[in-house]
Amino acid sequence: MKAKVYVTIKQNVLDPQGNAVQGALHTLGFGEVGKVRIGKYLEIELDTNDRAQAEANLKTMCEKLLANTVVEDYRFELEG
Amino acid sequence: MKAKVYVTIKQNVLDPQGNAVQGALHTLGFGEVGKVRIGKYLEIELDTNDRAQAEANLKTMCEKLLANTVVEDYRFELEG
Repeated sequence: MKAKVYVTIKQNVLDPQGNAVQGALHTLGFGEVGKVRIGKYLEIELDTNDRAQAEANLKTMCEKLLANTVVEDYRFELEG
Repeated sequence: MKAKVYVTIKQNVLDPQGNAVQGALHTLGFGEVGKVRIGKYLEIELDTNDRAQAEANLKTMCEKLLANTVVEDYRFELEG
C-alpha cells in the first residue's frame, strides 16, 4: 500500500519561503503569479493490507512526526 | 486560476531526508513503513484565464526555478 501525504502551512500562518518564491517568479517576468504557498509532499510505502489500520497509523505519524500541527495542516491519500 | 505543483526526487537519486524519516518512523514503532520519499508541494495562484498560456508558463517556472531537473521531477495540475 502506498500513502501520499501533503503537509501545508495553515492559511493564517506566514510563509516566507513562499513569498521569496513569489518574488523570484515576478523577477523572472511571471507577473501573473499571486500567492505562493510551499508545503511538503511525502510518498510512503506501507507493508500492510489493513486499510483502516494504515489510516489510523498515518494519522498518528502525521501528528507525531510529519507535521507540526501548531502551524501546519496535513492530509493523506491511500493507494493500492 | 490555481496551480498545484509537485516536485519529487527522481527514482534513482538518493533521498537522505526520506531515509531519516523512515528511520524515525521505525523508532516510533511503525515497522510497516517501507521506502519514504520527500518532495515539495506548491500552491500557486495565477491571475490569468488563459489555460494554455498558464500551462506553458508553469512549465518554464518549474524548469527555471521550482525544480532542479538534474535530480528532481515535477508535475502540476491547474484548477479553476
